[in-house]
Amino acid sequence: MVKFVYAFEEGNKEMKSELGGKGAGLAEMKKIGLPVPDGFTISTKACMNYYENNKKISEDMKEQIESYLSDLETKTGKTLGGKNPLLVSVRSGAVISMPGMMDTILNLGLNDETVEILAENSDPVFAFDAYRRLIQMFADVVLGIEKYKFDKIYQRFKEKNVVNLRKIVEEFKGVVLKETRSPFPQDAKEQMYQAINAVFESWNNHRAIVYRKINQIPDDLGTAVNIQEMVFGNTGERSGTGVAFTRNPSTGENGVYGEYLLNAQGEDVVAGIRTPKHISTLEESLPEVFKQFIDVTDVLEAHYKDMQDIEFTIENGKLFLLQTRTGKRTAQAAIRIAVDMVKEGVIDKTTAIMRVEPNQIHQLLHPTFSEESKGKAKALAEGLPASPGAASGKIYFDANRVKEAVLSGEKAILVRTETSPEDIEGMIHAEGILTSRGGMTSHAAVVARGMGKCCIAGCHDVVVSSDHTQMIIDDRTFVEGDEISLDGTAGIVYDGIIETADASLSEEFNTLMAWADEKRILRVRANADTVHDASIALKFGAEGIGLCRTEHMFFDPSRIMDMRRMILAEYKEDRLKALDKLMPYQQKDFYGLFKLMKNLPITIRLLDPPLHEFLPHTDEEISVLADMVKKPMGAIKERIKNLEEVNPMLGHRGCRLGITYPEIYEMQVKAIFNAVCDLQDEGMTIEPEIMIPLVGFTKELSLMKTLVIETAHKVLEERNHTCTFTVGTMIEVPRAALTADEIAKEAEFFSFGTNDLTQMTLGFSRDDSSKFIHEYVNHKVFDVDPFESVDQTGVGRLMEIAVNSGRSFKADMKMGICGEHGGEPNSIHFCHKIGLNYVSCSPYRIPIAKLAAAQAALK
Amino acid sequence: MVKFVYAFEEGNKEMKSELGGKGAGLAEMKKIGLPVPDGFTISTKACMNYYENNKKISEDMKEQIESYLSDLETKTGKTLGGKNPLLVSVRSGAVISMPGMMDTILNLGLNDETVEILAENSDPVFAFDAYRRLIQMFADVVLGIEKYKFDKIYQRFKEKNVVNLRKIVEEFKGVVLKETRSPFPQDAKEQMYQAINAVFESWNNHRAIVYRKINQIPDDLGTAVNIQEMVFGNTGERSGTGVAFTRNPSTGENGVYGEYLLNAQGEDVVAGIRTPKHISTLEESLPEVFKQFIDVTDVLEAHYKDMQDIEFTIENGKLFLLQTRTGKRTAQAAIRIAVDMVKEGVIDKTTAIMRVEPNQIHQLLHPTFSEESKGKAKALAEGLPASPGAASGKIYFDANRVKEAVLSGEKAILVRTETSPEDIEGMIHAEGILTSRGGMTSHAAVVARGMGKCCIAGCHDVVVSSDHTQMIIDDRTFVEGDEISLDGTAGIVYDGIIETADASLSEEFNTLMAWADEKRILRVRANADTVHDASIALKFGAEGIGLCRTEHMFFDPSRIMDMRRMILAEYKEDRLKALDKLMPYQQKDFYGLFKLMKNLPITIRLLDPPLHEFLPHTDEEISVLADMVKKPMGAIKERIKNLEEVNPMLGHRGCRLGITYPEIYEMQVKAIFNAVCDLQDEGMTIEPEIMIPLVGFTKELSLMKTLVIETAHKVLEERNHTCTFTVGTMIEVPRAALTADEIAKEAEFFSFGTNDLTQMTLGFSRDDSSKFIHEYVNHKVFDVDPFESVDQTGVGRLMEIAVNSGRSFKADMKMGICGEHGGEPNSIHFCHKIGLNYVSCSPYRIPIAKLAAAQAALK
Repeated sequence: MVKFVYAFEEGNKEMKSELGGKGAGLAEMKKIGLPVPDGFTISTKACMNYYENNKKISEDMKEQIESYLSDLETKTGKTLGGKNPLLVSVRSGAVISMPGMMDTILNLGLNDETVEILAENSDPVFAFDAYRRLIQMFADVVLGIEKYKFDKIYQRFKEKNVVNLRKIVEEFKGVVLKETRSPFPQDAKEQMYQAINAVFESWNNHRAIVYRKINQIPDDLGTAVNIQEMVFGNTGERSGTGVAFTRNPSTGENGVYGEYLLNAQGEDVVAGIRTPKHISTLEESLPEVFKQFIDVTDVLEAHYKDMQDIEFTIENGKLFLLQTRTGKRTAQAAIRIAVDMVKEGVIDKTTAIMRVEPNQIHQLLHPTFSEESKGKAKALAEGLPASPGAASGKIYFDANRVKEAVLSGEKAILVRTETSPEDIEGMIHAEGILTSRGGMTSHAAVVARGMGKCCIAGCHDVVVSSDHTQMIIDDRTFVEGDEISLDGTAGIVYDGIIETADASLSEEFNTLMAWADEKRILRVRANADTVHDASIALKFGAEGIGLCRTEHMFFDPSRIMDMRRMILAEYKEDRLKALDKLMPYQQKDFYGLFKLMKNLPITIRLLDPPLHEFLPHTDEEISVLADMVKKPMGAIKERIKNLEEVNPMLGHRGCRLGITYPEIYEMQVKAIFNAVCDLQDEGMTIEPEIMIPLVGFTKELSLMKTLVIETAHKVLEERNHTCTFTVGTMIEVPRAALTADEIAKEAEFFSFGTNDLTQMTLGFSRDDSSKFIHEYVNHKVFDVDPFESVDQTGVGRLMEIAVNSGRSFKADMKMGICGEHGGEPNSIHFCHKIGLNYVSCSPYRIPIAKLAAAQAALK
Repeated sequence: MVKFVYAFEEGNKEMKSELGGKGAGLAEMKKIGLPVPDGFTISTKACMNYYENNKKISEDMKEQIESYLSDLETKTGKTLGGKNPLLVSVRSGAVISMPGMMDTILNLGLNDETVEILAENSDPVFAFDAYRRLIQMFADVVLGIEKYKFDKIYQRFKEKNVVNLRKIVEEFKGVVLKETRSPFPQDAKEQMYQAINAVFESWNNHRAIVYRKINQIPDDLGTAVNIQEMVFGNTGERSGTGVAFTRNPSTGENGVYGEYLLNAQGEDVVAGIRTPKHISTLEESLPEVFKQFIDVTDVLEAHYKDMQDIEFTIENGKLFLLQTRTGKRTAQAAIRIAVDMVKEGVIDKTTAIMRVEPNQIHQLLHPTFSEESKGKAKALAEGLPASPGAASGKIYFDANRVKEAVLSGEKAILVRTETSPEDIEGMIHAEGILTSRGGMTSHAAVVARGMGKCCIAGCHDVVVSSDHTQMIIDDRTFVEGDEISLDGTAGIVYDGIIETADASLSEEFNTLMAWADEKRILRVRANADTVHDASIALKFGAEGIGLCRTEHMFFDPSRIMDMRRMILAEYKEDRLKALDKLMPYQQKDFYGLFKLMKNLPITIRLLDPPLHEFLPHTDEEISVLADMVKKPMGAIKERIKNLEEVNPMLGHRGCRLGITYPEIYEMQVKAIFNAVCDLQDEGMTIEPEIMIPLVGFTKELSLMKTLVIETAHKVLEERNHTCTFTVGTMIEVPRAALTADEIAKEAEFFSFGTNDLTQMTLGFSRDDSSKFIHEYVNHKVFDVDPFESVDQTGVGRLMEIAVNSGRSFKADMKMGICGEHGGEPNSIHFCHKIGLNYVSCSPYRIPIAKLAAAQAALK
C-alpha cells in the first residue's frame, strides 16, 4: 500500500518532493520542537494518484486520511463537526511554490451547529466572523463563485455585530445555494474532502499551467495538501498574524524583517485594508511574544543555515509558526547574506558560492531604474528583455541620426524594425535599442548584450513605419525626438524619461567573486572587438579575449568606404589597393587591443560575415558609393544583387572568403603581426591566437593555416622579429565537430561557435525562428530556447564528439566556447563537464560566468 | 634496397600499381608466351623516388637500370649506341591511363654513327627516316621544342630520298642546337636518361595535373617507364602497325574490331595523314599474320576474360604485341559484352554485374543525339551536365509561355537565370531546361533529374537579361522562338535543331538487370510525385515510392490560387475554407498514385517547403491574386514580404508548418485516407507510409504523429474502414541524426533526406555554393562534390550514428534514403554498408541504383 498521508511528526525537511515545501517545513519545525499546530500532510503522490484515478480520491487514500484525521482529533481532543469542534485550515503546498494555485481555506469545520458552540465557547462576533470567512473562501476557491457577490453583501452591513454577522452568514449561504443549486455543505468532512479536491484540481488550473510553463516546472510533480488545526490571530489584541524574514531580503542586512497585524487572520494582511506594522513594534505591544519570536527565528536560521521566510500567528499571547521556507532575495541580498554567513561561521565558502544564482547577479552589473520611478512611469509596450539595463532618451530611427544627436549632447534610443551590422555605430552611441522584430538572439540582441547595452527586441506592440520615420504604439504615433525609456531587464518600454543609476559593485560582491576564482577550473574570457569592450571586460576580471571579431572593425564610417571599394573591385589589383588602405586601421585596432590586454591571451577571428553585409542598401548610400568608385549606380546595384544569397547563413562566408580571396586574410594577418612587432619594439611580448572561422573540412584549415604562417613569417622576417603564435579553428559547422579527429591534426586550438553550431544542427535560422518558436515553447518541443542555453541532447552531443575525438588526437588541446552560450550558467556547467578549458562571453556576463564556473567545479 | 626495375619476365598483370598499366600488360603477355619484344619497366615507385630525391635519379636506381639494360643487350645481342645498335622505345605507363602525360619516344639509340650502321644493315631511307623521327619526338617531348619548327623543314623537302633525309636530319639537329644551345645528344644512354627524366617530369606537367583533378586520380601514384626493344612497322609492305579491340567497343558485338597501316610507325596512325584500314582487310594482305593475330586476340581475351584493347606492330611478316589493356566501351557494349560472356561461359553473373559501371548506363535511359548529328551542329556554350538526355526546340523565357507554345504543338526549351517552384509547369512541358546560374543540385537540376528531363545548369556563358526577354551568348542575341538544342549528358548548348532518338532498352540490358535483382539486398524505390513519374518508375522496375512530395501537387494553376488564398488567410476559418477546396485535388492525386502502384509501398511526405515559395513575385501576378481575394495589392505585398525569410532553408518549413498550422497537415491526411477508403471500396488494400519532414526534436514527431493518427481514425471511422499505416520521419536535420535513439521511440521508419542533411552538416547552401565551390574543387578541399555523392566522412558519420542508435532502440526499423544521393552508386554502396533497407531515387536512375545495389551486395 502506498503511503499517501503523513502526520507532521513523520516528516522532515528532506521530504519536500513528497510533502511539498510547506508540509516539509511544518514537519521540520515540529521535529526541532518549534510551536506548530498539529496536523497532517496529504502527499504530492496522492495528487498524482487522484489524476490517475480519474480525478477521484481512492478508497485507499480516503482510509488513510480518515485515520490521520482521527489521530488529529485524538491529539487535540476535538472532533471535526463534533460537539467540541475541530477547526482546520486546508492549504496546498507544491514542491516549488506556485502563486497560480489555490492557496488556503481557513476555519473549515464550521457549520450552523458548530458555529453556535464556538460562539458559546469564545466570542460570538469572532465565531460568526469566522463562519462568514469560511463560506466566502470556500465559495471562492472550492465552488468558483465570484468574490464580489459576497463583498457587496458584507459592505452593506456597516456594523459587524453578532446580529449583522448572523444575517451576513445567512445571505452568504443564500448566494451559495443560488449559484450552485446546492446548500453550503454542513457536513464538516464533506467540506474537507471538497477542499482537498479543490487543491488537487488547482494543480491543473489555467494559471498554474501557465506559471509552470513560464518557470519550467514539470507538470508531474503534483501538490500536497496540508490539514492543520486552526489557531486564531483574530481573537483579540493579544492575538495577531504576520510574515517575516530572518534577514532583509532586499539588502541582505542581518536582522529580522517583517510585518504583522494584531487581531487579524492571514487574509487581512494580504487584503491590505489595514496597514501592517513593522515587526520591531511587536516588542512594545507583546514583549514576551517578541522575545519568543526572536528566539524562534534564531533557531530556524541556525537550523536551516539560510535566511528564512516565516508565517506566524499569535493566539492569545501564544506564538505559532505556520510556515517556514528559504526566503527569496535580491541579488544584492543573496550575495551579502552568503558572504556574511561565511564570516559568521554558519556556512563555508563552497556553500556561499552555490547559493547565489549566477543569472541573478546580472541585474547588479547594468544601470537600472529604481522600482519607485518605474512605478510612476507609464508603460507603453512589452517586448523581449534582450539585453538588461535601463536607458532613457530621444527616439531616432536611423543609426547616423543617433550618432549626430549623441555627438551634439543628446541621449538617444535607436528604434528599428530590426538592426543590421550597418547600424553598429548607431548602436554604440545609443543609450538603448528597441526593435519591433527579432528574438533574443537577433542581431540587435546579440550585439547589445555584447556591448552591455540595454535592448528590447521583438516588441510586436511597436509598429515602425516602413520608411522608418515614425512608430505607432496602440493609437499613438511617436516621431523622431519623442522621449521614451527602456527597461531591458524586464522588456518594458516606458513613456518619457526615467532617471537611471549606474551599477556599483559591493565589497561582498568582490569577496564572492574572489572565492569563485579560487574554486573554478574553467578560465573565463571575453568576446570583445574593441578597446572599449576589452576595458569593460578587464574591469569585470576577464582572463583574455576568446573572440575578437575583426569584421566589426570595418563598419566605422572612415573605413566602410574602403571596405566597399575592396568588395566591388573587379580585379585583384584594385582589391589589393583597397586592402592596403584598410591595413593601417586594422593594425591600429590590434595594437590597441594587444597593448591593453598585455600578456593575456587574445583569439582573433579572421573575417567571417558574407561580403554583402558591408554593402549599402538605400539608393542614397549607393549613389554616394557610385560617385566614389566612379561607376554607374546600375553597376553597383548589379554587384550588390550578385552578392545577395538565398541562405547567407550557409553561404560565401568564413574561411570560404579566405579561400576565394586570400588577399583579405593576408591583409588581416599582416596587420596582426605588424602590431605584434610594434609592441615588441616597445618591449612587450604578444602571442596571438589566430582563428579560422567556418571550417568544415580539414583542408580548409590547412590551406588557411599555411596562408597565416607564410604571411606571418614574411612580416616577422621583414621586421626582424620572432613571435610564438597559434592557429586554430572555430567548431561551428556540424561536419567540423563530426570530423574533429581529422581537424585536430591541423588545429592548435578549438573554439566552439555554438550560435552557428546550434543553427546548423537544429536547422534553425535564428533570424526566422520567431515565426514558430512561440508555438514550440507552447508545445514544449524544447524545455529551453536552444539559443539561450546549449541544447545538450543535440548540439551538446556533437560538442562531446568533437572534444573526445579532437583530444583523441591531441590530448592536451586547448578548447573553449565563444558562442553566446559561453555566458549562460547551464551551458557553462555543460562546458565544464565535457572538459573545455575556457568559456568566452560578453564583458557584462563575466562575473556570471565565473560564478557559474565555480559552481560547476564544486558540483 | 628497393627494387625499382623489373624485366618483363618478372612481372604480371596483378602488378599494375608498381608497373603501371602498360608494364603489367607487357609482362603478362610475356608470361603467357605471346610475342612481345624484350624490355624492362622502371616502376612507379621509382617515379615517386625521383620526386623525393629532388628530381634526380638516385645512384641506386641508376645501377638497377644499367643492370637491366645490360641484360636486355645480352638477350638481344645488341648494344645501346654500339656497333650492333640496340634501338628502344621509351614509354610512360601510369596505373590509370592518362592522356595528358608524355607518351612515347621511338627509335632511341640512334645517333650519327648508329644511323649509318642501321642504314647499312637495312635500308638507308628507313634508317634516316627513323633518325629524323627520333630527333623530332625527342625535341618535342624531352626538350620542349615546338613541333612546327620541324614540320616546316620536313615539308620543304618534297621527295623523301636518302639525300633529302640526310639534309633533314642535319637541319633538325640545327634546330635543337639553336633552341637548346646544346647539340642533339649523341650518347645513346644520355638519350635514354633524358627520356626517363622526361617521363617522370610529365607526371607533374600542367595537363596531367588537370586531368588527374578532373578524373579524381590521386597525385601520389606516379608513372612507370617502359624501355623496350624497337620493332619496326615501317620496313616495307610486309610490316605495319595498328590498334584493335577483341570485340566492338561501341556495340559490344563479338569479333575483332580495329585498324592498321602497312609500312608505318605508331605515330602515323595517330597523325591521321594516311587513312588506316579495317582490320579484316589484313586477312587479304597478310593472311598468315592475320591468322596469328586472331589466335593472339583469342588467347588474350580468354586469358583476361574481358574485352582487350591491343596495340601491335608487324615487322617483316612477324606480329609483335606492344600493349594490351581492358578496352573502354560504351554502356551498350559493356552490357552486351558482359551478358554475352556469361552465355559463352567465360565469366559468371557476379563478374558480369561487377563489370558494368552503373553511372554509365545512364546514357541508355534518356533520348540522345547521335554523335554524327552533333558533329555537324554548332556548339554555342558549355554548362553543367545537370540532367542527361537531349532536347531541341524554341527558346522561351517564361514558364507560362512554354506551356502555351507546347499546347499549340511546338517543342520548347525553358531558359531562365534559375528556376523556382513556380516554373514547374513550364518545366513539365519543356523539352529541356537551360539555366545560367545554379549548380548540379540547383532547383532546375534536381527537378529535371527527377523528371528525367534534359537540363543544363549554371551555363555562365549565357547571359539572360534581367527582364527575361532575351539571352546573349558571346555577342549573339537570342530571343523567344529562336531554336537551340541541349545535350544534357555533356552540358553543351547547340545552335538550331538536332534530331533526337528515344532510348530503347536491349534484351541484354533486361537480362543484366534481372541478374542484379537476384543479387542485391537493398530495395530500390522511386522519388515520384505524380502518376506520370510513377509510371516511368514502374517501367524501370521501381519497388515502391520512397518519396512522394505533396507540395508539387499545389503548383498546378488550377490549385495554386487556392493555395495562395490559404496562405494569405488571416483567420483560421478562411484558411480552412481554402483547404477544403484543395482537399479534393489532393485526394484525387493520392487516389491515382495508390491505384497505379497497387500493393507497392508509398511514402508520402507532408508539406515541406516554406509557404512563400507558393506566392507570386511579379506585380502582374500579385494584382491577379489581389483581385481574387479582394484585398489591396499593398496588403498582399506586405504579406509576401512578411513571409520572406533570411535563411529559408533553416526557416518556417517542414513539420514547423504542421505545428503552427495543423489544419494544413490535417487536410493532407484526410485526403490520403479518403483516397485509401475509395480504393478499398474498389477492393484494393492500401497501406500508406506517412512521413513528417524536418524533424529535429522527438516532440515534433510525436505531435505530428498524434495529429496523423487522430485525423486518420476520424476519416476511417466516418467511412467505416480500417487501414494499416505507419508514421515515420525524414532524418535530414543533424539533430535528428544525433538523437535518433530518442526519435526512434516515435518513428516507425526513417528516411534520410541527404540533400538537406548535407546542407546543414556542411553549412553549405546549395543555392549559394556555386560562388566558391569552383575554388574548393581546385584546392581539393573535397574529392567529390558532396551534393553528388554522400560525404561519407562527415554526413556519413552522422548517418551511421542515426542508423546505429535508431536500431539500438528498434532493431528492425525500416530505414531508407530519399535524397538525390539515393541514385548515385558510391552513395548506394555506403547505404548498403550501413544497413539501410532501401534507396529511393529519380525514376530514370532506378536501373543504375539496382545495379549499384547488386554490386554493393557482391563486393
